[in-house]
Amino acid sequence: MTPSGVVALYTDFGLVDPFAGVMKGVLLTRAPAARIIDVTHGLPPQDVAAAAFWLERSYRWLPPGTVHLVVVDPGVGTARAPLAARAGEHWFVAPDNGVLSGILLEEARVIDFDALALSPPSRTFHGRDVFAPAAAELAAGRLELPGLGALARSLSGLERTPPARSGERVIGHVVVVDHFGNLITDLEPRLFSHVGAPSVTIAGRRAPLADTYADVAEGALVALVNSIGTLEIACRGGSARDRLDVGAGAEVVVEGSREP
Amino acid sequence: MTPSGVVALYTDFGLVDPFAGVMKGVLLTRAPAARIIDVTHGLPPQDVAAAAFWLERSYRWLPPGTVHLVVVDPGVGTARAPLAARAGEHWFVAPDNGVLSGILLEEARVIDFDALALSPPSRTFHGRDVFAPAAAELAAGRLELPGLGALARSLSGLERTPPARSGERVIGHVVVVDHFGNLITDLEPRLFSHVGAPSVTIAGRRAPLADTYADVAEGALVALVNSIGTLEIACRGGSARDRLDVGAGAEVVVEGSREP
Amino acid sequence: MTPSGVVALYTDFGLVDPFAGVMKGVLLTRAPAARIIDVTHGLPPQDVAAAAFWLERSYRWLPPGTVHLVVVDPGVGTARAPLAARAGEHWFVAPDNGVLSGILLEEARVIDFDALALSPPSRTFHGRDVFAPAAAELAAGRLELPGLGALARSLSGLERTPPARSGERVIGHVVVVDHFGNLITDLEPRLFSHVGAPSVTIAGRRAPLADTYADVAEGALVALVNSIGTLEIACRGGSARDRLDVGAGAEVVVEGSREP
Repeated sequence: MTPSGVVALYTDFGLVDPFAGVMKGVLLTRAPAARIIDVTHGLPPQDVAAAAFWLERSYRWLPPGTVHLVVVDPGVGTARAPLAARAGEHWFVAPDNGVLSGILLEEARVIDFDALALSPPSRTFHGRDVFAPAAAELAAGRLELPGLGALARSLSGLERTPPARSGERVIGHVVVVDHFGNLITDLEPRLFSHVGAPSVTIAGRRAPLADTYADVAEGALVALVNSIGTLEIACRGGSARDRLDVGAGAEVVVEGSREP
Repeated sequence: MTPSGVVALYTDFGLVDPFAGVMKGVLLTRAPAARIIDVTHGLPPQDVAAAAFWLERSYRWLPPGTVHLVVVDPGVGTARAPLAARAGEHWFVAPDNGVLSGILLEEARVIDFDALALSPPSRTFHGRDVFAPAAAELAAGRLELPGLGALARSLSGLERTPPARSGERVIGHVVVVDHFGNLITDLEPRLFSHVGAPSVTIAGRRAPLADTYADVAEGALVALVNSIGTLEIACRGGSARDRLDVGAGAEVVVEGSREP
Repeated sequence: MTPSGVVALYTDFGLVDPFAGVMKGVLLTRAPAARIIDVTHGLPPQDVAAAAFWLERSYRWLPPGTVHLVVVDPGVGTARAPLAARAGEHWFVAPDNGVLSGILLEEARVIDFDALALSPPSRTFHGRDVFAPAAAELAAGRLELPGLGALARSLSGLERTPPARSGERVIGHVVVVDHFGNLITDLEPRLFSHVGAPSVTIAGRRAPLADTYADVAEGALVALVNSIGTLEIACRGGSARDRLDVGAGAEVVVEGSREP
């Protein structure tokens, strides 16, 4: 399979400035037939871990053949490598800063400015000067991965605390907070499927584990496995973030609540 | 007429998380030739009345043949039906919660998961798992409305207070506040066309009825019939919401101001 | 060269209301093959100077043949003319309020409602009723500039204070603040290339002139020539706006810091 011409964008540029628009202009200039999908330009500024989480949980919903262009790049202007990579029928263009660490890559290349015949890039906007041109080459079918540069020897990871399990007690963390104030954690249900009658605790408060938001009363806390397959703490008809006053990084405990 | 391949999106997902992008991915996966128009992802969270108002006032500006995909869905996971419907040359896919109540539908169907050969949907994200797949079937021309499910017997409405008229006095309400802080009401000019020399009162303040913002001085309040055909209270060069400290639900009175 | 069918949008409509979506609906209704690029709908409300700055610094990155549709229009409903214009291989449709003043136009026409066979426009939403229809005519190739109206005799400019230079001291201003809180000025490097060992002062604080954000420590102020070719004051890993508590209009001084 080769890229299909769909380019999906994930950035922390926001939508106030024209930077995302400029990147789309570069894509369309170099790949006039590309179909551009704005997945999000609202990733938390410079938060590589949040970007990695959302990318890992989203990319499979885009069509096979999509080139995913991910620009959350606090190290722009430093030596961090620009990458072009592939996992199955999905392609990725992104800085080597851990943002691709949740994806099982089958091939990763370090983008070579000379191979792309690019002008010397700016020191501060590689989304425009490096990543979009490379994505355009892939999406237009002019270059395949080997044409973009040499194989990457090792890739950067993310510093993070993985979920911990001790008997019927599992500890995870809030990774991102969504638009509705729902607290989304790194706990997949397989991590607590062995726990009998599990209860969820966050910020000293208990939340019953339910199937959907409507299983609890208006205004009540509820924990559920969300649509992206992880445990989430919500407040029906409200914002769990505001209710509990916690955000990314907060500890979440799942444990058995059966009487001894 | 059949759908033309244009899909217009209206959601309360915001643009911080990738949920709108994921829905677009599902649309493009199932209807690769679809043309997706983001109308807005910034509808007030879970505010079905605001969504219904904006949809009713916007949809005619999209091309004939458009499939309007509307996901403001506080009842996701409950028994509320998923609908596919048509009014003239416009198609609609939305939950049955009143969001379509402002549109004179000619045909409405309850989306049948089995007809769509869908996997069991998640309990929390029917935009991705039910509504986008159904919209894709329509936009791609694979299924027409009868193929999506049985006729809907009755549709949900909205609880709301309609404008009241008593002689030369008409009372309405602010329905939504726009990006500029303009207060947009449910009062169409036909409701007060009989009022002589009408004056507008909101939050104890009078606003002169004018033709355009520039008819009053910088910083002054003004009432006018806006581009979507309802009475609006604005503050020239500023925000009427901030100036008056009122929002959706505020009462607005139009009455004759002729001396007796 | 003629327009290629790409229409790039720049507005201050925000993304909460459906106004940008409605304008896209009008474009697609009248130019079904148009390719619409949202550059930004987040321009500061009614801030013509900010819009002019971003447009001037962005438009060249869109493909040749693009029609740039710019709607920041505080004078809507007044006598300010609607314009259609061209600079090289780029076309522009915008109100005559100074928003195009940074672009060296080769031809500018006053849009004639009758030539477009438009219904009488609303008094408050010319983006929908005048500018989008005119842009659609150009993008669809139905009309060229002369068909849209008579030549514009004179164009509006912007009131602004240009940078001032006195020996090795150059004074400029912050023009816009970007999403990251970076303070972007009107000082191009040619204005201070004669200054020996330049240092930058803003709000009583010095910022070293560097090549990229990473040249200073986390949390430190830094001045650099950004990707759009002007001096910018940033705070590594933070927001210079929040750090210095200044915004658009703030004075920025570049001067030689060599000992006498």
